[in-house]
Order: sequence, then structure tokens, then C-alpha cells
Amino acid sequence: MELSTISELVIPSDTKVVLLVMDGLGGLPAESGGLTELETARTPNLDRLADEGICGLHVPIGPGIAPGSGPAHLALFGYDPLRYQIGRGVLEAGGIDFALTSRDVAARGNFCTVDAQGLISDRRAGRIPTEICAELTRELSDIALPGVELFVRPVKEYRFVLVLRGEGLSDALSETDPQRVGAAPLPVRALAPDAERTAALVNQFVAEAAQRLAKHHPANMLTLRGFSKKPDWPSMQDVFGLRTAAIAIYPMYRGVSRLVGMEVLSGGTTFADEIDTLVARWNDFDFFFIHYKWTDSRGEDGDFAAKVKCIEEVDALLPRLLALHPDSIIVTGDHSTPAAMKAHSWHPVPALLWSNRCRPDGVRAFGERACLTGALGPRIETTALMPLALANAGRLTKYGA
Amino acid sequence: MELSTISELVIPSDTKVVLLVMDGLGGLPAESGGLTELETARTPNLDRLADEGICGLHVPIGPGIAPGSGPAHLALFGYDPLRYQIGRGVLEAGGIDFALTSRDVAARGNFCTVDAQGLISDRRAGRIPTEICAELTRELSDIALPGVELFVRPVKEYRFVLVLRGEGLSDALSETDPQRVGAAPLPVRALAPDAERTAALVNQFVAEAAQRLAKHHPANMLTLRGFSKKPDWPSMQDVFGLRTAAIAIYPMYRGVSRLVGMEVLSGGTTFADEIDTLVARWNDFDFFFIHYKWTDSRGEDGDFAAKVKCIEEVDALLPRLLALHPDSIIVTGDHSTPAAMKAHSWHPVPALLWSNRCRPDGVRAFGERACLTGALGPRIETTALMPLALANAGRLTKYGA
Repeated sequence: MELSTISELVIPSDTKVVLLVMDGLGGLPAESGGLTELETARTPNLDRLADEGICGLHVPIGPGIAPGSGPAHLALFGYDPLRYQIGRGVLEAGGIDFALTSRDVAARGNFCTVDAQGLISDRRAGRIPTEICAELTRELSDIALPGVELFVRPVKEYRFVLVLRGEGLSDALSETDPQRVGAAPLPVRALAPDAERTAALVNQFVAEAAQRLAKHHPANMLTLRGFSKKPDWPSMQDVFGLRTAAIAIYPMYRGVSRLVGMEVLSGGTTFADEIDTLVARWNDFDFFFIHYKWTDSRGEDGDFAAKVKCIEEVDALLPRLLALHPDSIIVTGDHSTPAAMKAHSWHPVPALLWSNRCRPDGVRAFGERACLTGALGPRIETTALMPLALANAGRLTKYGA
Repeated sequence: MELSTISELVIPSDTKVVLLVMDGLGGLPAESGGLTELETARTPNLDRLADEGICGLHVPIGPGIAPGSGPAHLALFGYDPLRYQIGRGVLEAGGIDFALTSRDVAARGNFCTVDAQGLISDRRAGRIPTEICAELTRELSDIALPGVELFVRPVKEYRFVLVLRGEGLSDALSETDPQRVGAAPLPVRALAPDAERTAALVNQFVAEAAQRLAKHHPANMLTLRGFSKKPDWPSMQDVFGLRTAAIAIYPMYRGVSRLVGMEVLSGGTTFADEIDTLVARWNDFDFFFIHYKWTDSRGEDGDFAAKVKCIEEVDALLPRLLALHPDSIIVTGDHSTPAAMKAHSWHPVPALLWSNRCRPDGVRAFGERACLTGALGPRIETTALMPLALANAGRLTKYGA
């Protein structure tokens, strides 16, 4: 469904919609015949919502595709992630809470090691500590380029973000990373005529940086890729007629929320802090995206029991959210991160949708197996969830007469 | 699936297909934990068909989208309603059984009230009675325009249809309705070079009409919108190789059926009359669309018990249809109209498909919850039903070798 089609059906309303995302919620049994993390967790509040609402499993990108968090969240926000693609540089900038402007070109940078011939011997510079990365980026930040501002910011270990800010910059640039050892970093080439100046500026930056880094073995060189500008997408406000807010602690999720025009609120450091923000700002917005990170973290750790505890932590705080009386609520994940796999996986993601207009589907508890028989079905496309949440909150009129 | 793809697979056959639509069939429980209208109704004949056939729930337009009856019926007929869009004027003409030709441009008209400055003070002219509307349209019908025929026909209350008939007319015209009070009606503008003459003709009509209406306060002016021509779509006969007939009492459904090339038969005034027509014309067609309106009407009234009775009325007459031995039968709705909402809703629509080639799916009774586990699935696209009905009637060959 095109966003523009939905947009035409939006009607004014004072109802409230909440999207609660437990990152990496979907799971697998720890052993054959067992229960998943979600099925194991004691979740009386989620079970009540599942009982009164409708359930199912959604597929963020496509069958068999394990989603990255960026595209998976876009899908949750209603944006087709195969159409709305986020450049790597933009995603990385979002990941460190760097607020891009429309005049910026961002790139993902790696510090790397080159030998005496200038050939790359380690694409990650021996995974230098993040503190070293921060020192190096400070040293590169005062490189002067004509007519543009320059930002070089550390991300983690060998990773950093480069941002050029100025008029007329283009992101139609080739990458410098040869993607293998034994090759030299490539010069940046303009991929469009109007990118020649930007390419020259980036090459000038790389040349100057190479001189300054020479003495910093193993991080004696850098590569750049994913040149990209902040995308000019319709905002959720424009598309869905909602005043939208994001409550997220981790920068990447704050970044993706900004790309669709959400106001990013203070997330604090715990889920309780996030709920505090929700309560404090309840009257200022129509839509709240609340992101809970640690289900994914514990899944990535392979810690089944800790992931179960995370789910139970969310469930225990849910009454504070429900006391605000949202008109429709979605509780789900952005993808599955089974502890048994220690990674994002392709498995469809359990979801529940609650409103007082749900048609009962017989699902009594929130869990992967129970969701299979729910009204949302076992494989609904993730982008369907936003329109359904809006409809359930009385925010869409009918199509045609 | 493209219609042209299905079209290439059609093979000759003397089998019969019936599509029985109970308008607005899908429902909701009257109270939490209760049954829907369909689940409440005593429907032994539908239950037998569900038991022997396959069931599911379909989505006419998209997730969260409450369908209008026009696009929902197109989807039931196999036509993608987002691609095959019906102009408002054409739909309104169909709604009064006005048979458009390819030389016609139709518009939806509203009588309205303007003040001494010509600014609209009531966009619906105080909802004048339909009889007044009929008188006014008669008075406007003899306005003479050079080179075209003119038809002005009443619809209901303040609504009417304007049709211009002639050679070379275009529907690329802007609307005159400013969509708010306090503004004057707008002149019609040509939206394409070849629409200049039509725009001039319509403006001439409006000027003359304004003079005649001046004395008829509150209906002292009119607005026009939804200029449209009868669409040039492939007929169901062309696409599916079927001789198609519609049996419908309400004009709008007769109109939509005409747009896909069906022959519209006399529907009488009751469902028993419609079945009489079906029996009488059984040998003349391969496909019958039978439309039952009152499930939707009672849903719109918010009368749960009366909607239940409507469903039971259809069930009781079903044996007369079954005695004709159709090869495949679909029984469904075009959308949901839960009595609890008194309106069309986005909830998926229960459907059953019966033939003697159905693979048993364990669904024993026709109802929303039972349909969730049926072979058609909980969210099949509505346009899939026609190809399935054809396949079950032995009317499609295989795709590829």
C-alpha cells in the first residue's frame, strides 16, 4: 500500500497510539521441544492485551531475510524498507545522535592498517579501543577544506563518521574501501557530474588524514563508504496526521526516528525512565514509539534466561502505560534475536494489537505459537501494522464510496 | 496477479459459478467476549457449505482500510481496486441506474445555499427533501448547450447527477466545490488542453443554472465534482471467459456490475425475488453475482439482532440456490459493517468457497473465528477469490509447462 493512499484517508482525531518495540523480541526454544523466551516469560499484562486484542507474526523485509534494526524499524513505522533505504553514512550518524542537516554528506569511516607499500593489511586496524578512535577523530577534525565544515566523530573501536557540511554537496561518490586486504584504499570518484567538487574535497581530506595518521600504527590509514545525504522522506506527521514522538535510549533508534520526522524525547537510561517520559509528555503527542533495547542485547549474548527476565521487566511496567488509556497499542519487536542463535534472525516477529474494536481471535496469551492462529495471521507484512493501529484508533476514513 | 495473466489460462467450460455477497457481512461481538452477528446466526446451510468447502477472511483494499462498496465489489470481481478506480460521477450515475455511454462525462452535483455575496453558507442546501431535488433537476434539464445532450437527475436530498453527452468531451476538469463554507463556487478549469471545450460547456451550464436556482432558496446554487467518464476496462467476459449476470436490487451495485460488463438482471424487491431471477435465468449465464443488501443496512443501523435475522433469511433460501447445482460457490461480504460500529470497517471479511474439489480444512461452521483457521487464511486479498472460484469450477488451465 502506498503511503500516499493511506495519507488521503487520514481524518482528524484526538486519539492516542502507542508502538512499544521490544528489540529482537522473537525467539526460539533453548532446546528441542521447549518454549521460546517470550513463551517462557511470565507476562500477565501482555497476555491480557493479547486476550482482548488480536495477535500474529510479522515479516519486516521478506521471507528468510534477517532484518537490520534500521529497515525493521522503518517497516514498523509503516515505510516499505525496500523502497525507503537508509544510506550507511546516515545510519551511522544517527547511531551517534549526530543530527544531520539537508546540507550534509555523511560517510561511514573505518580506521585501517596499511603496510609500507600502502596496501591494507588489516581493514579494522586491530580493532583499536574506542578511546584511541576518539583521539584520532579529534586529530582529524581540524583538517581544513575550502568552503565546507567538517565533522569527524568516533563511533566504536575502529569505526567513525565523517560529515561534510556545505552548499551543493553530492553523495554520488564511490567508496574508498577495497573490501579486501592486500589492496590500496581507492580514490573517491564522482558518480555524477555534479559530484566532482565533493569528490575532490573528500580526496583532499583523505590525503591530509593519511599524513596525520602515518605515525599512529595500527590505525595509520582510513577508508570511507556509504556516502549519503539525509533522505527527503515524507514525515509520519505528513503521512499519518500524527504528532509523533520517539522515546529511545540507544542512538540508532533515535536516528531512525528522526528520519521519519519524530520528535526525539529524552529516554533516560532505563525502561522506567522511558515510561516516566511517556507519562510526562502524554498530552503533547498523538503517537509514541517506545523502544526497549535489552531483549535484543541479551539475545545477542545468547543468554536465554536474561532475555526472559527483560520481557518480564517490560510486562511489569506495562500497567503504567495502560493507565494512560491509549486508544490503540501495538507491542512487538523489530525482528527476532533468538538467544539460541546470538544474532538477528529471519523468524517472523510476534505482535499484538489492542484496541476496544478488535474482533476476538481466540489467542489468550502472547507467544510465538499462540500468535500463529491470531487474526493478524502468521506472516503479515510489518508495514501493515501502522495502518491497522490508526484504523483501530478511528483515524482512517473509508476508501471510496 | 494481473488480469491478463489469468485471462491466458481460461479454458472453455460449461460449469457455473455463483458469487453470493451479503453486503457488510463481517461483524463484531455486541459485547466483550460475545459472538459476532454471523457467529450468532443459525445458519445450517452455510455451515454445511463451510464444512464441505474452505473458509477464510479477505482484505478488500489493504490493512486497516475500511472499503467503500464500489471498490470492494471490484475486488470481489477480481479487479484490483487501487488500480481500477471509479470516478465519483460515474459511481453516482451507476447509483441511480443511469446507463452511461462512452460519449458521456458524469459529475456528482450538490445543491447548496449561497448568500447575497455568492458565498456558500450551506454546502448541502439544508438537506432539501428528495422531491424538491427532483423538481429542481427537472427545471435544469432543459438548459440548452451547443452540440451536447444534457441529463440532470436527482439522487437523494441535495445530491444529483449531471451528465453531458456528445463527441470529444473530456473529464479532465477541476471541481467547482470549494469544500468549505464562506467561499464562492469555483469555475471549472480544463486540466488538459483537449478539455477546454468541455470546461466552457460546464461553466455555461453552471451560469444558466445559477440564474434558474436563484429563486429556490435554500437550494439557490450548485457545485459539481468527480467529473469522470465510463472507464474503458476489460469486461469479466473478456478476462474470465464467462457470460456474467448481476442480480442486485440497489442501483449502486447494478452500476458497478455494468462497469465490468455484466448483464444486469431484474432484482425485484426481496432476496426471494433475486433467487427467482437466478432460477429463471440459470441457463443463460456462466457466472451470477447475487447481491443481498440488508446485512449492511442493519449493520449501519446498529441493529445486531436484525442483522442476525438477515443472515438467517439468506441461509433459509440457500437451498433453492443449491438445488441448481452450481459448480463453485463463494459466499461472503464486500466488507464488514459491525452493528457495534454502525459503519463500514477495516475488519477482514469472512468468506467460504465451496466446490467438490475443496481440500478439507477442518472449518465446520461459517463464522469469523472459525474462518481464521481455514484454508483461505486469515488475510487473503479479495481479488484472489475469483480465480479460486474459476479454478474450482475447472475453468483455468495450468501456468507454464
